[in-house]
Formats: sequence, C-alpha cells, structure tokens
Amino acid sequence: MSQITQLLRRAMQTAPARTATQHLDRTRVWSEFGERVARLAGALGGLGLQGGDRVGVLALNSDRYLEALFAMPWGGFVVAPINTRLAPREVEFWLGDCDCAGLLVDETFAEMAASLRPRLPRLKRLIFMGEGATPEGMLDYETLLAEAHPAADAGRGGDDLAALFYTGGTTGRSKGVMLSHRNIVANALNTAPALAGDEGTVYLHAAPMFHAADNAVNFVVTAVGGKHLFMPRFDAGLFLQRVAREKVTATLIVPTMINMIVHHPEVEATDTSSLKRMIYGASPMPEAVIRRAFVALPATGFVQAYGQSEAAPCMTFLYPDRHALEGPKAGKLKSAGRAAMGCEIAILDAQGDEAPRGEVGEICGRGDNVMLGYWRQPELTQKALHGGWLHTGDGGYMDEDGFVYVVDRMKDMIVSGGENVYSAEVEQALYQHIAVAECAVIGVPDAKWGEAVHGIVRLKPNAAVSPEALIAHCHTLIAGYKAPRSISLRTEPLPLSGAGKILKTELRKPFWEGRDRAVN
Amino acid sequence: MSQITQLLRRAMQTAPARTATQHLDRTRVWSEFGERVARLAGALGGLGLQGGDRVGVLALNSDRYLEALFAMPWGGFVVAPINTRLAPREVEFWLGDCDCAGLLVDETFAEMAASLRPRLPRLKRLIFMGEGATPEGMLDYETLLAEAHPAADAGRGGDDLAALFYTGGTTGRSKGVMLSHRNIVANALNTAPALAGDEGTVYLHAAPMFHAADNAVNFVVTAVGGKHLFMPRFDAGLFLQRVAREKVTATLIVPTMINMIVHHPEVEATDTSSLKRMIYGASPMPEAVIRRAFVALPATGFVQAYGQSEAAPCMTFLYPDRHALEGPKAGKLKSAGRAAMGCEIAILDAQGDEAPRGEVGEICGRGDNVMLGYWRQPELTQKALHGGWLHTGDGGYMDEDGFVYVVDRMKDMIVSGGENVYSAEVEQALYQHIAVAECAVIGVPDAKWGEAVHGIVRLKPNAAVSPEALIAHCHTLIAGYKAPRSISLRTEPLPLSGAGKILKTELRKPFWEGRDRAVN
Repeated sequence: MSQITQLLRRAMQTAPARTATQHLDRTRVWSEFGERVARLAGALGGLGLQGGDRVGVLALNSDRYLEALFAMPWGGFVVAPINTRLAPREVEFWLGDCDCAGLLVDETFAEMAASLRPRLPRLKRLIFMGEGATPEGMLDYETLLAEAHPAADAGRGGDDLAALFYTGGTTGRSKGVMLSHRNIVANALNTAPALAGDEGTVYLHAAPMFHAADNAVNFVVTAVGGKHLFMPRFDAGLFLQRVAREKVTATLIVPTMINMIVHHPEVEATDTSSLKRMIYGASPMPEAVIRRAFVALPATGFVQAYGQSEAAPCMTFLYPDRHALEGPKAGKLKSAGRAAMGCEIAILDAQGDEAPRGEVGEICGRGDNVMLGYWRQPELTQKALHGGWLHTGDGGYMDEDGFVYVVDRMKDMIVSGGENVYSAEVEQALYQHIAVAECAVIGVPDAKWGEAVHGIVRLKPNAAVSPEALIAHCHTLIAGYKAPRSISLRTEPLPLSGAGKILKTELRKPFWEGRDRAVN
Repeated sequence: MSQITQLLRRAMQTAPARTATQHLDRTRVWSEFGERVARLAGALGGLGLQGGDRVGVLALNSDRYLEALFAMPWGGFVVAPINTRLAPREVEFWLGDCDCAGLLVDETFAEMAASLRPRLPRLKRLIFMGEGATPEGMLDYETLLAEAHPAADAGRGGDDLAALFYTGGTTGRSKGVMLSHRNIVANALNTAPALAGDEGTVYLHAAPMFHAADNAVNFVVTAVGGKHLFMPRFDAGLFLQRVAREKVTATLIVPTMINMIVHHPEVEATDTSSLKRMIYGASPMPEAVIRRAFVALPATGFVQAYGQSEAAPCMTFLYPDRHALEGPKAGKLKSAGRAAMGCEIAILDAQGDEAPRGEVGEICGRGDNVMLGYWRQPELTQKALHGGWLHTGDGGYMDEDGFVYVVDRMKDMIVSGGENVYSAEVEQALYQHIAVAECAVIGVPDAKWGEAVHGIVRLKPNAAVSPEALIAHCHTLIAGYKAPRSISLRTEPLPLSGAGKILKTELRKPFWEGRDRAVN
C-alpha cells in the first residue's frame, strides 16, 4: 500500500542530518522535520480532530506549510490547500464546501480568517502558523508543537482520501479534487525523472504551494531527502539572488515567471550554474521565451510538464533532451511531451474512440494518479471519469512519436500569470451587473502575464456604465487576478455560431493578428 | 488504475516504428509487436481459456516469450513463467499446483511437456512457440496468431492477479508468488531510474526470462519503447560479441555472470562502449569482482538491485554514483543501496520493532510492489506479510544514511557455538585471496559446535594454495569464530540455480545426509 508519509520517512531514513527546510532564521534537518510533523499531527488529534476531517491551509509559502502538508496525512486528516488569491467570499465557499474543521493561517490571511469564522460554525480551530504575534482567539503553532505528543502514523494509504485541491470551473463553481495517498505517490514516481534529484537537491518553492503544480515536485524533493527553500511571493530579481546565494538546483515555475527571469537585467551577471532543473508547466511556453531561456540559463535543463489537479497533476513530460533546437531530437518543443510512465494518454473523439494521429480530440488520461473524483459532486465526477478515462477538457493531438500538442482549452480557459482563469466565471460576474446585456471574456496578449483577461460587453438599451465601473464590480465578486484588466463596449450583438454559441475565435482575431496563441 | 498493458501501449504510442524485438532472423517493430500480443490473447480466448486462467511458459529466452508475457495480461489470463532448470517432477508439481490450463513451450522443453501431459488433466492446450517443426499434438504458435482475431484489452488492472512467479531452488519448498498488475507497474516505476532508458535503449536479456530479476527491467524497457534482444543461454564470450555487434546499452545479470564477463580473455579487446547500464542483483557482489568490472567495462554504469520475487522484485538500489571507490560518495559499495522510491524499507527485530542503525535484523519492505500473497498458501502468506510488512527472511542492517547491508540470507546463516555466522561475510574474505576463483561457505554438522563453518573453493587456473593457508588468510580479515574450520578445494564450477545463485542446498547435501537441518 502506498502512503504519502512513506516519502517523508524515506527522507528521515536516508538524510536524517541533512537540511530539510530553511526559511527566514529557521533551519531544520529531516529527523527534526519528521518529529515536528508527528507533533503537529498529535496536536491536531489533541484538538479533537478525527480521522478524515478536512483541515485548510491559507498561507504564503513557508517551511510550516510543508510541515502541514505532511502532518495531515500522518495524522489521518485531509489537507485542503486554499488559493491565496481568492476573494473572501470564495474562501468562505471553499471552507464551507468541505466542512473544514480546522484552518492554518499565516499573518497575511489571519484577518480574513477571523472575519470569516462567525459564518463557518464547523471551523472550530484556527491555528496561526505565521510570523509575529499570534492574534487573539487563535492557537499558536509553535506552542501546539511544543506541548504535543508526537503521533504515530495513522496508517492511511492507498485509496484513502489525502487532499482536496480546488479548481475553478466553467460553471463558475469551484470543485474539490479528491486526491488519494496513491494518487500523490503515483505522481511522485511519475515526476521523479523530471527532477532527477538526490539528497544534494536544493529546491526553491517559487510557485505557490497551494497549487497542484508545486506539489507535483514537492513530494519527490522530499522523497530524495532534498532541501526545501521558500519564496512567499515570487520576484524575478530575488529569485536570481537566491539561486546564486543558496545554490538552488531545481525549481518549478510557470512560463510567465520564466519570462520575467530570463529578461531580468541581472540574469547574465548572476551565477545560475547550480540550477540544473527548471520544471515549467501550467501553460504553453512561447518559443521566443524558451530560446531566450537557453541563452540566459545555460546550465539549466528544462522540463515541461502538462497536467491538471485531477491528475495529481502530471500527465506528460518534455525532458531536457527534447528541448533541442537542432539535431535528431529537435522539433518537439511545441509539444507538451509524452505520457508519464505511469499515466496512459489517449486523444479521444466525441464518441470516445481514439482519434487518428494528428487529429484534434480531447486529451484523456488514466493511471494511479487519476483523482478519486470531485468532492460531493457525483455527477461531475461521472462526467469527468466516464469510460475509465480522465477527460481533461483540453483539446490536443498526438504526433507519430506520441508527443502531445495542447491546441485548445476546451473549457475556454485564460492563462494569466500562470493562473487559470475560466472565462465563464468572469462572465458570470459581469452578468451580475444590471446594465450588462451580453458579454464574452477572452485572453488577449500581454507582454508581462502572457495573457490578460479582457471583457467584451454589450450593454442593455439605455444603460450606461463605464468599463472602469464594470471592472470594479467584478472585483467585489471574484479574485483580483480573475477580474478583467480591460473591457471594450460594443453595440452590435456578439457573433454566434450555428449552435448559438458565442464565437470567441472571431472575437480574439483582432487581438492576436500576426501572433501565435497556442489556444485559438 | 494501473495496468501492465499500459506499459506496452506506451511503447506502441511513442515508438510504433522502432524495433521492439530482434531474435534470430525475426525483427518486429512495436506496432507489430502489439498487434501480435492482441492476436495471441485472442487465440488463447479462442481456445476456451477464461479470464483468470493460468498459462505456463516453459522456454528459453526469445521474442515470443516476451509476447507471451504481455499477451496474458492483455487477455486477462495469469502468466506462470517456469524455471527452466527444474527436473520434470518439479515442473509437474508447479503446473499442477496452479492448475495451468495451457502451456507454451519451445523446442528445448517440448519433449518434457509432452511426457507430463497425461498426468496433468487440466492442461488441455500445449502451444509450441519454439523453432523448427511443431510436434504432433501441439498447437503451432504462428498458425494460431495468423488465424486469430486481435483481442481487445480485457481491462484487468490494479489488484487483479497478473502473474505467478515461483520461488525456490535455494530455499526448499516452492511457493507461487502472486503478483498483481499494480505490483508489476509499481516495480517498473521504481526501476525506471536504474535503467535511465529511452527509445534508444537496446536491452539484452542475458538472465533467464522466467525469473523476476529479468522482469524487473523487462517492463521498463518496454515502457520506454526500447529494443529487446535475447540470449537463450548465457555465455560470456557470446555476450561480449553481441554487445559489440548490436550496440547493447543495458542488461541485467547476476554477479556470477559479471565474474565470467570481466575475466573473459576477450573483454579488453571488445568494444563495450555502448553498454551504459549493467544492473546486477540476486546475490551480493564480491568487492574484488566489482573492482575488476570497473576496469574491464569502463563505459558502464553499474546499478545493484536488491529484492525478491515477493517484491516484484526490487526493494533497494545502489546507483552508479555510489559505485565510487573514492570521493564523497564512496564507501557504500558493500551495501545494496537505499530504498526504491516507492518501497519503504525497515530493519525489524524479532518483536517487529525497528532495529537501531547498524544492528542486524530482518530486512522488511512495504509498498505497492509487495505481492498479493502466496498462491493457495494463506498461512505462509500471513507469515510473510504480518504486520503490514513483507518479511524477506534476509538479515541486514542499515547505516546512518539509509544504506542497507545484506549480511546474509537468514536461511544461509550458520549457527556455530551459539554465534551467528553470515556466510556472505566469510565468502567476501575468501574472495579477497588472489587465488580464489569461486567459493561458497556453508554450515556442516559438528558434534561440539552444532554447525561448523566450511568453505568450498575453486581456485583460478594455475593457482595453488592450501586450505590451511586460505583459513589463515581469513583469520587476518574476520573474527576467529567466523573463519572456516575446514575448506575443500574443487576444480569443477559450483552448481547454480536457474537464477544464477549458487545452490547451497546441493553443496550441503553430502554433509547432512540422514540428518536434520532447520533450514535447507
């Protein structure tokens, strides 16, 4: 039976005296880290939490976040990492949806958590894991650990539920992706060749730890007994400084972050020779950026990973040898790589049959990494997993060598700064404004973020509202990164397909003329 | 859900036009190989075999053996590879024990199979997969394939039984190890870093394909779309010729085979530069042999794997970077390496508690690679798997860095005057004498001490040394109670099991005739 905690015990067994985490003025070796994990699990049990209870984490990246990610499976609880960019009412929805019995927060989110508490009667335990003084009414993380007895491993594993990762949805409603112990261990094994790490690995958490992408690598870094470093907020200049100073060997980032790094004025002057692995994913990498990256980071092997939270998350990998601009292995750079060894990939047509090579269908996957389902959403689960395949909702095709090309997010997703923005969710927010007759939300090119969220709105007759006011309206309903950065008003109806669907391809055209968009 | 057939489909998807198998005058690419697998599965179904039925394979290594290993899981049957070194009555026991409904044989075993058939009423289908004319009363493999409809994948996976590997030979009573789809896929993922292969991999099956050791690598070579080559019988000179001629990149062999290869007169003159990976296991490697191997095969990265059929089979790995004689990574060469990423290892004492580092206990493992149990042996299963751990029966200790040292097969332990003597340690001492070509240390009856340590030694050609001098040599290296009390010299090679392990049961027999020894 596979257990997430086994990955931690491997680090404790093979690298007990090596650094596990280094953050601010704190350094812990793996034996100490494991002891703290067992104490945190014991403390949570002492607070009355029962096996299977959900515990949220709402915090920026830190060493304690990592402890929490292991303490939950150790104690038999289910961890629910929460997107830090959400509006308070979205956080409230998530905490309520999974009946969180406890929540760990840091100083950035303590106030928000305190304000939500009265509306969440199940949420009895608020633990402050941040820096500085513990707010009134919250339990202090270090005090809890100091007073707790280390718990024995609760013995969960295999198909037992271990984590809930929330994803945005086309319907506007978030879904909780249920990942088992086996899902997460299977992903760690699938991802091990991408990291190619050992106890000498120094991994910098540059992407947010609440997201499945960072966790793709997180558990492998632990299993090999590597060192974890943390950036609470991404900054390209700081990233470069830390790589040079702390001899970072590996990181996972999203393409917009690569873009910022490789164009940073200090990149050439910085010693990045330690950085052997840069794993990137979440959205396609423009070729101009990757070409620039080869020059700016000459010692680095790049790995593209494609997947989604529902696959825990990795499904395909494009390894360093395929990041070639010439030679026999060149020509695959526009692909997302090939199936992870333990995750079968197929391109299925509307009938559920395999599409011929080169023809676009839906990218589907199966294997031990595929989620148990959506939390309390049996119908959506059935839809996503019907026929034994995970249906990603992404359109793609496969070439003769098994390389997968993601050509379209079928769900109409905008990828902005590495965050997925589902246009349907933004459209719902716009539609809640009384003046809006019709709207469509698309991604438009943006030098900094890759894509920016753009709204196209037709107002009701005689209604008058400025684009600025509509944007402000959206900010009251959804996270800031989801709200449109720009809005254009029009008077003519939006173009429709024969089936009555808004033709977004038409709307995107004027913005993307002469440019490549992986998704059209 | 993990499926063995997924590994094959990955090869068909990523390397359809690349060579899958090359044997004698036959070459098949992966798309063709997959088609043949589906046809063989269809043919077996057409013969009336039902899902879950056991089908034996009794043959030397060949391309068709590989097809059979994938056709069984494809068709939903259970493959039972049979040890080719067995006496007919042992083969009869195995085929009867698992109620084989069909058997595939080659020309080497056709006669034996025909003679056993009348005594095995369940065994209705004999398929001839060998070279030359198909014997009377047997079905012809190629005719079956030509006439069959390709079957769809039967859809088995996860915990469904996929294979029965019989253990035995060195330890007495044979047991059928039940491996599931998940066990075999988990092992493939655990073993992938040891192979470090891709579609350019050229793997030579040098060890017998009926054994779990070769299958440790077999499924990974397939998953990456590598090329399979076959040696029906191992021969060091032929091995070297084939490496040079066919640019073999990887192989799995047992230490006795390495010994033959690295001391072969042609080794220095042979171009072995293609051979990037030599995975060895099944028994500890004497340091003198591995030192010689570094010189004789300078381009080769060595990986030691430790495990047993019950673990599908790999449990620990010692990677090339740890095959170092100097530098910061040196000093671990006497170990079997560290836990495979997906297989937790613990050294347990007699009470089932973890032994302190450095203290000998039983090597135990757990993870998705651990067998379902022994075929129709619930008591032995319970004994082997009690407490959630696979108990290997091997004695070992772990150092501070998590490296595992196999001090002996517990069954191989000699108890002399109340002291435990691990024969491997004594053998290592003997191997350090320059005149020793091959040796085995066993316990022999002793009126005073219960057992006495006895060495059986074959000297190198033209070497001359007395037993007394060898005993004195051992006294300079190990404690007096461990040194052999007697040594017999012999000129013929030591008897080997099918897996290439020295058959100590055979060596003990003349000493123990008419007496009881707890472990044989």
